[in-house]
Amino acid sequence: MPVGTQGTVKAVSQDVLESLGAEIILGNTYHLYLRPGHDPIRRMGGLHRFISWPHAILTDSGGFQVFSLNALRQVSDEGVRFRSHLDGSSHFFTPEHSMDVQIALGADIAMAFDECTEYPADRNRAEESLRLTMAWARRSLGHFRAHCPDVPWSTEMPGRAQSLFAIVQGGMYADLRRQCAGRLVEMDFDGYAIGGLSVGEPREATLEMIAAVLPLLPPAKPRYVMGVGYPDEIEQYARMGVDMMDCVLPTRAARHGLLFTSEGRMNIKNKRYAEDPSPPDPDCACPVCRRYSRAYLRHLVQAGEPLSAALNTIHNLAYYLGIMERVRTQLQAGDPRLASAPAPSWQTS
Amino acid sequence: MPVGTQGTVKAVSQDVLESLGAEIILGNTYHLYLRPGHDPIRRMGGLHRFISWPHAILTDSGGFQVFSLNALRQVSDEGVRFRSHLDGSSHFFTPEHSMDVQIALGADIAMAFDECTEYPADRNRAEESLRLTMAWARRSLGHFRAHCPDVPWSTEMPGRAQSLFAIVQGGMYADLRRQCAGRLVEMDFDGYAIGGLSVGEPREATLEMIAAVLPLLPPAKPRYVMGVGYPDEIEQYARMGVDMMDCVLPTRAARHGLLFTSEGRMNIKNKRYAEDPSPPDPDCACPVCRRYSRAYLRHLVQAGEPLSAALNTIHNLAYYLGIMERVRTQLQAGDPRLASAPAPSWQTS
Repeated sequence: MPVGTQGTVKAVSQDVLESLGAEIILGNTYHLYLRPGHDPIRRMGGLHRFISWPHAILTDSGGFQVFSLNALRQVSDEGVRFRSHLDGSSHFFTPEHSMDVQIALGADIAMAFDECTEYPADRNRAEESLRLTMAWARRSLGHFRAHCPDVPWSTEMPGRAQSLFAIVQGGMYADLRRQCAGRLVEMDFDGYAIGGLSVGEPREATLEMIAAVLPLLPPAKPRYVMGVGYPDEIEQYARMGVDMMDCVLPTRAARHGLLFTSEGRMNIKNKRYAEDPSPPDPDCACPVCRRYSRAYLRHLVQAGEPLSAALNTIHNLAYYLGIMERVRTQLQAGDPRLASAPAPSWQTS
Repeated sequence: MPVGTQGTVKAVSQDVLESLGAEIILGNTYHLYLRPGHDPIRRMGGLHRFISWPHAILTDSGGFQVFSLNALRQVSDEGVRFRSHLDGSSHFFTPEHSMDVQIALGADIAMAFDECTEYPADRNRAEESLRLTMAWARRSLGHFRAHCPDVPWSTEMPGRAQSLFAIVQGGMYADLRRQCAGRLVEMDFDGYAIGGLSVGEPREATLEMIAAVLPLLPPAKPRYVMGVGYPDEIEQYARMGVDMMDCVLPTRAARHGLLFTSEGRMNIKNKRYAEDPSPPDPDCACPVCRRYSRAYLRHLVQAGEPLSAALNTIHNLAYYLGIMERVRTQLQAGDPRLASAPAPSWQTS
């Protein structure tokens, strides 16, 4: 899922996202709540209509940004008090408020309000954080069930309903993760995410946590790993059974001149590309690789041109969406390479 | 002609320009000479191939930027010494060097090297500047005729040749302008531009200079007014017989949130648009007006999103190109409104 933090996937238009085959994008509840505000968006018919994206949208709970953008947040059982990174104003988020905001935004998928455990966290801290996340998941679910009919498009699309996913936390403790997953599955959400990963831990730990949790999540419901990852990571997790992932990496790296290609990572700012007439990735059929040279893309970065971010982002998103397309096709065809894929290191050790 | 200063019309891709019907864009010789350099561009096959724009391109002479971006330039009969606005390095441009650079860039239309007279300029200064511009036009033409076969694509497209246009200067003195035009026409260029306008003078003076010069320029050759203007200006000049115009206004204004619409100028940052679901211009069929609301465009500016510049630019370019399309259609149809257009104020006073 391309990340559209403020109601736009940075530097590319909705038309371009459609042409690349993006089927779902992510919006950040924290950012949209602060600007332009969930009430204006609700009055304008919800996020789909506001940003003119008639396809699927997922909104996160706001929890990750509240924790990652606020050094001075105050957490209690009731909720979290934090200050806006825009103007310093004080705000209080509870599970109920996160649900109200997400119902107002009206994405197809809302996320339960969680406390994203930092890394590293000792066992006591991870247990306490887990206790909070599970209590908040229950409150999120109760409030969501009572109020989700208030979604802005309820009368327009009577057959359509918003879904709510829970988020498995538990730090880097596999038993806590399993305990959390089991309890959340009992509560019966529409889908399940594994959160609190890609927060600085070694990749082996990420993989271990995903492998510990995945078998406990109902395969008939979407399984979502939040905030990952590099191209080889998303391919690996998809082959393990993960259905959904999101990450700012393809779009953020693009804005810093880093391209993902079939030949590896390419820093397009490098002087070696100054007169290179080849496409960024000779194996890529995206609109950027079909039309422009490495030399031109390098020039756009060097010259500080806004087109640089746009073209680099288009290529990286095409590359990421292409990986998922290929994995999906292989899964659907029962490709033997999936069955014979080497076991990851955490399984053999 | 949309302006593509550094080999890109800021914030929009070549695909989008094509979809808007842009047939020719302008590149700035000064900027491309400094970065990435005319030699690299020549080695890569010229500007068309470097930026992947197979349609027409015009490069200016570099004169305007040398004068407008360099407070400490030193002008002699031989040429102009100036410092790079990028790194302070010293450079010397002569008419011959401007031709060499423009031949290396290989645009369809090159411009003679001129001294753009500042405003206000007294008669002595305008006369001296005019003398220089005419001498430089003659040297530009001689050097161009001797070297234009060196254009990078000469062997690829044997039937195609680069054109050279002259630039009429003369400050705000109609007799100097006419004198300049007459002498340049005698030299027999491929087309003629009127330069040194839109440099701070009142609009009546712009109009007076255009009206003084136009009748002296051969109607069978392109007549180009440089650096104009607002939507009503370009319509007025086109109806007077001007064939070509360029201006940064539609693109630069877009990046500052200023939209040109059938209802007038619209500052999309205005709070009144915060929840306005209407398209920016209800009479416009551009991709932006078909898909997005004023509220969304305002949000993108407020949130500092790069998509803001892209969408605003697309609309403004569509609006400008639409004006020219309409005027062209009316001219081709011999529309009576053209004949009955009210005389501009300078004719009746």
